Amino acid sequence: MICPNVMNKTFENNSWIKKVIPEIIPPSLSDNTADIDRLIKGIENSLKADGLNLDLCFLKSLPKLLSRYHYQVEAVLFENNASWHLIDVQPHQDGNSVYGLAVDLGSSTVVFRLLDLTNGLIKDEISFHNPQIEIGADILTRIHYASQEGGLDELHDLVINRFNEEIDRLTKKHSLVPGSIMGMVVAGNTTMTHFFLGLDPYRICREPYIPVINRPQIIKARELKLVINPEAPVLVFPNVGSYFGGDLIAGILSSGMFARDEVSFLIDVGTNAEVVIGNRDWLMACAGAAGPALEGGVAGMGMMAGPGVIDQVAIDPHTLEFKVRTIEGLSPVGICGSGLIDLVAQLFLAGMIDLMAKYVKARCGDRLIEIDGIKTLVVVPSEASGTGQSLTLSQPDIDALIRSKAAMYTILTTISNTVNMPLEEIDRFYVAGTFGTYIDPRSAITLGMIPDRPLETYVPLGNTSLEGATMVLLSSKARDDIYQIRDQITYIELNVNQEFMNLFSAARFLPHTDRSLFPSVKEWV
Amino acid sequence: MICPNVMNKTFENNSWIKKVIPEIIPPSLSDNTADIDRLIKGIENSLKADGLNLDLCFLKSLPKLLSRYHYQVEAVLFENNASWHLIDVQPHQDGNSVYGLAVDLGSSTVVFRLLDLTNGLIKDEISFHNPQIEIGADILTRIHYASQEGGLDELHDLVINRFNEEIDRLTKKHSLVPGSIMGMVVAGNTTMTHFFLGLDPYRICREPYIPVINRPQIIKARELKLVINPEAPVLVFPNVGSYFGGDLIAGILSSGMFARDEVSFLIDVGTNAEVVIGNRDWLMACAGAAGPALEGGVAGMGMMAGPGVIDQVAIDPHTLEFKVRTIEGLSPVGICGSGLIDLVAQLFLAGMIDLMAKYVKARCGDRLIEIDGIKTLVVVPSEASGTGQSLTLSQPDIDALIRSKAAMYTILTTISNTVNMPLEEIDRFYVAGTFGTYIDPRSAITLGMIPDRPLETYVPLGNTSLEGATMVLLSSKARDDIYQIRDQITYIELNVNQEFMNLFSAARFLPHTDRSLFPSVKEWV
Repeated sequence: MICPNVMNKTFENNSWIKKVIPEIIPPSLSDNTADIDRLIKGIENSLKADGLNLDLCFLKSLPKLLSRYHYQVEAVLFENNASWHLIDVQPHQDGNSVYGLAVDLGSSTVVFRLLDLTNGLIKDEISFHNPQIEIGADILTRIHYASQEGGLDELHDLVINRFNEEIDRLTKKHSLVPGSIMGMVVAGNTTMTHFFLGLDPYRICREPYIPVINRPQIIKARELKLVINPEAPVLVFPNVGSYFGGDLIAGILSSGMFARDEVSFLIDVGTNAEVVIGNRDWLMACAGAAGPALEGGVAGMGMMAGPGVIDQVAIDPHTLEFKVRTIEGLSPVGICGSGLIDLVAQLFLAGMIDLMAKYVKARCGDRLIEIDGIKTLVVVPSEASGTGQSLTLSQPDIDALIRSKAAMYTILTTISNTVNMPLEEIDRFYVAGTFGTYIDPRSAITLGMIPDRPLETYVPLGNTSLEGATMVLLSSKARDDIYQIRDQITYIELNVNQEFMNLFSAARFLPHTDRSLFPSVKEWV
Repeated sequence: MICPNVMNKTFENNSWIKKVIPEIIPPSLSDNTADIDRLIKGIENSLKADGLNLDLCFLKSLPKLLSRYHYQVEAVLFENNASWHLIDVQPHQDGNSVYGLAVDLGSSTVVFRLLDLTNGLIKDEISFHNPQIEIGADILTRIHYASQEGGLDELHDLVINRFNEEIDRLTKKHSLVPGSIMGMVVAGNTTMTHFFLGLDPYRICREPYIPVINRPQIIKARELKLVINPEAPVLVFPNVGSYFGGDLIAGILSSGMFARDEVSFLIDVGTNAEVVIGNRDWLMACAGAAGPALEGGVAGMGMMAGPGVIDQVAIDPHTLEFKVRTIEGLSPVGICGSGLIDLVAQLFLAGMIDLMAKYVKARCGDRLIEIDGIKTLVVVPSEASGTGQSLTLSQPDIDALIRSKAAMYTILTTISNTVNMPLEEIDRFYVAGTFGTYIDPRSAITLGMIPDRPLETYVPLGNTSLEGATMVLLSSKARDDIYQIRDQITYIELNVNQEFMNLFSAARFLPHTDRSLFPSVKEWV
């Protein structure tokens, strides 16, 4: 498997955030150029560029600093729209570092990656829950809350304050001053980035479903009250629309699919199934509700990945013995999305559910019970469970997963039909997010969720938002790429017509009504 | 006489501050571009330019406004370094005006000119004392005060607060909202513009005599806490150095000398005598202390122009009768700089002072008295005066004026020697400031202050700071010109050597020791 990761490459400092050591001749009676103009000239010479911009605050503080350090200083700058802006000036000494923060702004989890911009190395990585969860776990609740008096400000402040707390902790841990963080790049979905910027996502979920902005400009940290260097640029990924955010653009960027000659797919599954197909010449995208089944949010025993959560399941088709693997090997307390897919695939291969994903009583035996008249399978009996109660999977839990997998496959089929590019001709499917990292593609194929292609066709990308944000922080080229990707994407509205519904119905079987599409799936007969 | 004034020309809207009416198609299900991107696109199409910048605050307010006005809006923008910035968006309706404020920031007097930027017309003009006078009338006192704890902030706040009071009064008078003022251009000397920007002028008067900045960048009004449109650009004229400020660059701009083929002089006399010589190819400048005699600040009866102040004097050489003209025809209360030059020139022509500018007792008769042993001339007896006391001119008052006039003439001679361009070959002397407007060049020639050239050689320019600021506010070309002028000027340090002192000594006679230089001056013999 190929894991494209900028970190693996030799670091070349071609970032849009740069440190320079300008040559400045101190003023004298024979050269009475003003201090600031003298500094600007020195920097412009170092950059080989004209028209440096600097904020009023520098005019007040710099003359004293320049004189105190005998004009031996270094300057950190960022470039935007072909013009350079001053971030900071420090006395020149060896080993001054310049840090940047790459941020994956997820609706449930936020990840910070602290990078040394002078050598491209990762200094630290931390993650924490999005504090907006206290308002609502799902995005719609938050959008609704934002439209109430003071709601938007509260949601915005929650994020910014939490960011500042974590930045404070992170910088203290590494004995850095917050001002040494001189750039931030944030990738997230359209609603999350709107909240981050304090923008009302009101019309994101209402006709005509438009965001406030598609391409946020660079904003200085002080404008967002972020406690890093006040002049540090904060770059928020652009979005294609309300349902196609910067997280997906980060995915396309970090996959490298937009630079390949061959056509690839990018799949990102969460509450929405988001799919991109294309190559260096064209990109088409489409998104559809996949339901929350895959996020572990719905099944009775479903939960987010964490200690004791089941992430792998094997069922012996002969003995029908269950083997579960849990995170950190603790007694099982629940199951995450990838575990759930494994479980249902294994149930199918063991003949415990049929083609229509219904429990087969004869094969399930005692494990199958009824709770309030609903057929429910005991996956882990209470005596083996970490909660003291049995972990169970109900028929409706399975039905929800089947709807999700059918939606995924239907979307893939639809988009491949639209561009007239059969699924079996695609030689690479990049799989973004936790789903891609932990899921066993074999199980997803067994369920008929993804096409029956050789396993090496599937390339897990890990946290593409974080990876994409990192790339943008470290490279002008990657920074430019995201705007080009954005402009290149054609977004296809999923037309839920009769044809779509037919495809969807066919995809609700295991693995599919057309068995010839999944030759490798050998279920228990 | 030619009076170059941008107001006399037909107005062409080629300002760097512009109003456009963008064509915006409202969003729909088939076109889900975000509101802000939609607006930006519309504006960029109108401007035929790319890369519009807009502040975070607009992202929050604009979506509601766009939707409320059905996307029928107009936008005001400014251009800086080839990129455009949004100032404001308003509902589109006929007759929305966009105003600008041209400011002459003098150390004693501030003048505001309110301009309608859509047609270039002057809406109003007001003047008021620079509130920093309460700290100190002269600049050095203020620079010294600025270096004390809190002093700089106080001087800065005094100006900004007074600006805001006057803006409030001005906008109320014309029933405008302060936000309709969408641009400000400020011309002043280097120290005044430093105070305006809140910058410490500490080293302006200390070795190596450098300002903080030569070319201030555009600053937004909100950053200076100016209560006009918060996003309005505030352009502060650049300076050449500590002693050659934006006021002089405004003078060069409004004279048009930098665009002429022929070489001209620009003369500005205040406490300093500032002189520029050059044409479209080169500009040389020089400044020297002329003493405050010409500002009416020193002579016992001297005062700034105002009601009852003598601005013209005639003495009948036969009857020795004095005729004085006062401003508004009131009883005389004092004399201003131009009146003083008239008075001393007339005293010389009437033989009441001699070649060395000493009182001639035989001609002065009873008018000449002694006060504390100092020879003093009664110009206006107490019974004719508006103060109830006689208005008098002492021998030291005259001596101070003579030093000033000698300094002026010596500077002109020195610079003309330096560039090897005899004074009699210069066909135009632009005379800036109040001095230029009110003084009788005949009297200045009589004193030997300026060369003995035909009177039409002298072109008064009036308030060139205000005129220059107006031009910059109304024209991109003029805006670009001031930076070009700045870069083109060679500043000559006046080398006070033996040759200079010889020239100075020769110039202390009336009109000069070399009478052949002033053939037109026919004094009483």
